[in-house]
Amino acid sequence: MTDASSLSALAAAAAIRDGELTSEQLVSDCLAAIDAREDTLHAWAHLDPDQALAEARSRDTEPSRGPLHGVPVGVKDLIDTADLPTRYGSSIHADHQPEVSAVAVTRLHRAGAVIIGKTVTTEFAVFTPGPTTHPLDPARTPGGSSSGSAAAVAAGTIPLALGTQTAGSVVRPASFCGIFGGKPTYGAIPTAGVKLCSTTLDHVGAFGRDAADVAVALGVMAEDPDRFRPTDLGDQPRIGFCRTPWWDELEPATRSLLEAAATSLARIADVVEVELPPEFAGLVSAQEIIMGVEVSRSLAWERQLHGDQLSDQLRTYLDAGESLAERYDDATALAERCRAQLPAVFAATPALLAPSVLGEPPPIATTGDPLLCRAWTLLGTPTVSVPGLTGPSGLPVGAQVIAAPDDDGTALTAAALIAPALAAVTSPPPSGSTTP
Amino acid sequence: MTDASSLSALAAAAAIRDGELTSEQLVSDCLAAIDAREDTLHAWAHLDPDQALAEARSRDTEPSRGPLHGVPVGVKDLIDTADLPTRYGSSIHADHQPEVSAVAVTRLHRAGAVIIGKTVTTEFAVFTPGPTTHPLDPARTPGGSSSGSAAAVAAGTIPLALGTQTAGSVVRPASFCGIFGGKPTYGAIPTAGVKLCSTTLDHVGAFGRDAADVAVALGVMAEDPDRFRPTDLGDQPRIGFCRTPWWDELEPATRSLLEAAATSLARIADVVEVELPPEFAGLVSAQEIIMGVEVSRSLAWERQLHGDQLSDQLRTYLDAGESLAERYDDATALAERCRAQLPAVFAATPALLAPSVLGEPPPIATTGDPLLCRAWTLLGTPTVSVPGLTGPSGLPVGAQVIAAPDDDGTALTAAALIAPALAAVTSPPPSGSTTP
Repeated sequence: MTDASSLSALAAAAAIRDGELTSEQLVSDCLAAIDAREDTLHAWAHLDPDQALAEARSRDTEPSRGPLHGVPVGVKDLIDTADLPTRYGSSIHADHQPEVSAVAVTRLHRAGAVIIGKTVTTEFAVFTPGPTTHPLDPARTPGGSSSGSAAAVAAGTIPLALGTQTAGSVVRPASFCGIFGGKPTYGAIPTAGVKLCSTTLDHVGAFGRDAADVAVALGVMAEDPDRFRPTDLGDQPRIGFCRTPWWDELEPATRSLLEAAATSLARIADVVEVELPPEFAGLVSAQEIIMGVEVSRSLAWERQLHGDQLSDQLRTYLDAGESLAERYDDATALAERCRAQLPAVFAATPALLAPSVLGEPPPIATTGDPLLCRAWTLLGTPTVSVPGLTGPSGLPVGAQVIAAPDDDGTALTAAALIAPALAAVTSPPPSGSTTP
Repeated sequence: MTDASSLSALAAAAAIRDGELTSEQLVSDCLAAIDAREDTLHAWAHLDPDQALAEARSRDTEPSRGPLHGVPVGVKDLIDTADLPTRYGSSIHADHQPEVSAVAVTRLHRAGAVIIGKTVTTEFAVFTPGPTTHPLDPARTPGGSSSGSAAAVAAGTIPLALGTQTAGSVVRPASFCGIFGGKPTYGAIPTAGVKLCSTTLDHVGAFGRDAADVAVALGVMAEDPDRFRPTDLGDQPRIGFCRTPWWDELEPATRSLLEAAATSLARIADVVEVELPPEFAGLVSAQEIIMGVEVSRSLAWERQLHGDQLSDQLRTYLDAGESLAERYDDATALAERCRAQLPAVFAATPALLAPSVLGEPPPIATTGDPLLCRAWTLLGTPTVSVPGLTGPSGLPVGAQVIAAPDDDGTALTAAALIAPALAAVTSPPPSGSTTP
């Protein structure tokens, strides 16, 4: 039979349910696919094939537990797992074995998923990269901080993986890797058992090659599948094209791609231009302040007792974050005012299409800039990265779909609707080349 | 020299600073005092005298780290400590040794405190009691969930201890034990490293025999001593006497005590009656719903994998909590509306005096009813239990002082001001006795 690692999560779950595939075979195929790529990809922080296969075999002997029965899921190594070590991307926690699994992991397990291993995160999900490379170009970053999860799914080695987003750590790597990556409305998935970065910004999210896979994973982790089900957007639905106040920061080729995407989308949707209220321009700075202050607090123990094991970059970031404390209240007040304006933003259109990354994935020294994700993370809107666009070097450039808080189903439905329109856009010529 | 265990935290810190006392001597005296009471009190979940003394000796060889240098602090066993086991009051975690200390503990340590041991909590800080008894009557509860911390401080064995409050777990035991116990404005002290009960209700608080001790501990843990410094309430300050919508639930003797307290207070303050807006009556039910839903989610791993090790009472509570999910949004909306009315409540008076417990500590089968604390916890106001009143059986009956959010210094200053007025109230005759 063909290699099952390329199946979507839902297709694999259906094949297992119908007796056409065992979880053991699926996990075995995924492990082989991982093995073939890992020397270059470096997506995994911990992988124990025997343990994963044993877990799969027990799924095969049980009645179905739920919609992901037998399906392997990679878990970002920022998220606690009681059966697998969890190192938060830091040597400080090199020997850490959590006692308790995160709520999100517990719920996936209850829905039948096989936790196949732990994927690479940046250092404490902040900016210092791990070893993971981009599946299409090992000299480029897959994005971060959920680097390993995005790369493993994009490389076709596993169908589904978990990430977390505090600035842009789900949407950015999904956009760079050319897959779907979604985070729900703030608070919809408990963050208990996720190493705390930012008390008011952390979200759990998921990566898949299908929007429906992301939807089912988020639904399981939120214990609220209804919230993530497809919504009826009608024929020729209205989609807002939102250049955002940060449009001028985009690489020119990305602006062209987004404009072409809006034109392409206009064949199947009623595309209207949406301009955000002026105050929204301040949300990027506000998110930086809130995150800086909160992360510097959350890592108090590591800073005080093991500061020498933090990267210089992170130590500098934490010191800077602490110094932002007096601007914290203004930042949260701005976020509150902008959240109050969201009903007006979404009054005329159920979903927005907006840029998610400045351009193609940059070289591996960084994980790219989360600039375009910061405002939506702070607002707590459901946000889904949509693949389909291709940049001048032939690498993915995602876009993001945003819906109103609690309207997660709309964001996922619109993402699935929009993806083919993005894929229909012709990529621009490589930079530096001349048109004959 | 006299037994140093009876010193307040600030007096002990001053004596250490001035070279009149060593941390080793202080900790040694506290350990002796603990030893003399522990057979009956059962306040400690973990105590390692050698480790505590070694820690004290290293304080004695260091320059002063901060305002609590050398002072022993008991830490509720719901709060992670990297050097001491942390069991959350449950056999599920009997062998649990956290890798990382909570932010609050890390900050106390940085300020020079000696973490002397872990104090008994109810099971996961919910309602199933631990073994701790009331310092004045072993047949009664010291209150909960921070049972061991309150009892250890009230018994005069240590000067300072940490608690947490999700419903009434700091204020209630402080009121039953006749000491000061305060929780700050919601969010002022990071809860990272505290076993999560309720994502939107958990607060870290502190117990002391002096209001100033509580203030310094909260200031250290918030890394914001200014917020907790005494405020100038002026001569004859205005204090609101607030019977609350739950006045009829109080035992008659407690109503008499509170009325007498208001009369006594009127000698030094301008006491005005304050009635809460009508909507506030719904806050108790709203807090119960939010806590029930959130706690049932937070303990997902324990419920799913170790449900047989939960008490029947907790299992029933968690199942019931889950069933409240559809009322959650209405409950949070009510809380938001009431929070918006707090500026009006505190417009005429900087602080309120209100009941905190229904009466004297009940028998040991329960930890008492948090009814009168629920609304203030949900509102996120700073709240301090004030000792001084004595019930018909001769046992303490606290009251609580509440200030507006972010006005923590006012709550603590008012608590210190009010305590002597409460102590001047004559206790009512024992119930059942007749006045000649």
